[in-house]
Amino acid sequence: MIDTFNQRLQKVSLAKKSKLCIGLDIDLAKMPEHMNKTISGMESHLKAIIDTTTDICLAYKLNMAFYEQFGFKGYELMEKIVTYIDGRNITIADGKRGDIGNTTQKYAISIFDTIGFDSITVSPYMGSDSILPFIQNKEKGTFVLCLTSNNSGKEIQLFQKNGKSLYQYISILADNLNENNNIALVVGATNPQLMEGIRNLNSLPWLIPGIGAQGGDLEQSVTISNNNNSLGIINVSRAIIFAGSCNVDDINNAAKNYNNKINQYS
Amino acid sequence: MIDTFNQRLQKVSLAKKSKLCIGLDIDLAKMPEHMNKTISGMESHLKAIIDTTTDICLAYKLNMAFYEQFGFKGYELMEKIVTYIDGRNITIADGKRGDIGNTTQKYAISIFDTIGFDSITVSPYMGSDSILPFIQNKEKGTFVLCLTSNNSGKEIQLFQKNGKSLYQYISILADNLNENNNIALVVGATNPQLMEGIRNLNSLPWLIPGIGAQGGDLEQSVTISNNNNSLGIINVSRAIIFAGSCNVDDINNAAKNYNNKINQYS
Repeated sequence: MIDTFNQRLQKVSLAKKSKLCIGLDIDLAKMPEHMNKTISGMESHLKAIIDTTTDICLAYKLNMAFYEQFGFKGYELMEKIVTYIDGRNITIADGKRGDIGNTTQKYAISIFDTIGFDSITVSPYMGSDSILPFIQNKEKGTFVLCLTSNNSGKEIQLFQKNGKSLYQYISILADNLNENNNIALVVGATNPQLMEGIRNLNSLPWLIPGIGAQGGDLEQSVTISNNNNSLGIINVSRAIIFAGSCNVDDINNAAKNYNNKINQYS
Repeated sequence: MIDTFNQRLQKVSLAKKSKLCIGLDIDLAKMPEHMNKTISGMESHLKAIIDTTTDICLAYKLNMAFYEQFGFKGYELMEKIVTYIDGRNITIADGKRGDIGNTTQKYAISIFDTIGFDSITVSPYMGSDSILPFIQNKEKGTFVLCLTSNNSGKEIQLFQKNGKSLYQYISILADNLNENNNIALVVGATNPQLMEGIRNLNSLPWLIPGIGAQGGDLEQSVTISNNNNSLGIINVSRAIIFAGSCNVDDINNAAKNYNNKINQYS
């Protein structure tokens, strides 16, 4: 039997003793002066990050915007990085895609088949059409935006229907669609009270951005997300990949520190 | 004075006598047997479509999923097509992007600066963070998803707050943010009653998908969208770019027929 995406998440998390996701959001402006600020320089830096952290983290998340800013050459870099990870860790295409069904199907081909990512993040403004084509292959995962970490997300996600907020509805919809055990949620770290409410609805795995620069609390996020016998994956980007002087030791130490803290709170 | 995006939309529409947008959603499965089904074959077909329709249509919309399915080579093809259009028509990146502010900023660089599109479609699930970085340059346009043409969009867009539906709130938010006169809405053709309600809220331009394959009515869409002294842009994809035998004459005729009908109903 081939594992479903959510089964694989659990297995890799146990094997690596890690609930850490490292956000490979490469940014020329944040690379120190001495580094090679070209596409190939970024490729080298990203591969060095991967080699020094592959045993420490569960997953790598590539926010597609950071690659697309360089046009097709950035897109090609993203493909090379996924190939380089080569199944050692779970890969997440953070593209927040979503469209009508036949178009979403093209995104599924692009992300899962052409590039070879294990999973994608999805923006659900267009409803279940934006989710269904992604979940047909049980080995591939879909993280649906539920409650986001940014303030302005609340403008939208607190709208109501039948006594439920939109973010609660999304969590329930995702759980109802989860027949292949390959759906998870994106739940930002910045609102512990609402996070507890979402965790009480079901035990879907969570990807949790918003720790660090955005002000989310690590201990609360780990505690809440792992309740209900589930899995909370903590994403850290800048604080790891641009740690200290950006050398391999600083990056390795930063990843280990985060992973140890997460395991201590679990 | 440099025109704002919405001023340019109006001027180009008057100059071309057109409210037609052609969706360049290339699809190998829909290309006839005799055509060259490679990246360069698609490039030739797309350039032939552009050359025979540039005087007939206001805009070209490239749904990014149809290019991304081919990986970085498809992404490069998309860049080449925008370069080939070269300002003759308005270009729309239909990517339904949206993220937290600093990430959305990277998408703005990618779409407007790196590729050179005139405008983008945006999915507003994360609120105004997903819109603000796109609207800083008044020459560049942002089409915000409001009411989408697909059935499952209603699952989300009819949620309520303070007596307003989410799609109405999005229309009002977009109008409030429209200080640079460069915001427009995506309003699907499939629900005339709700369309009338949105048109009564403000006079933002609309991009209207959902005609043809999705069942939207052309006459009603044109009539409603042009009320309130505004501009409704009708998108047609498959019914033009794969018209008849896919030869230049069939495509030219299909584009002319749509444009004439739209002008007749305006």
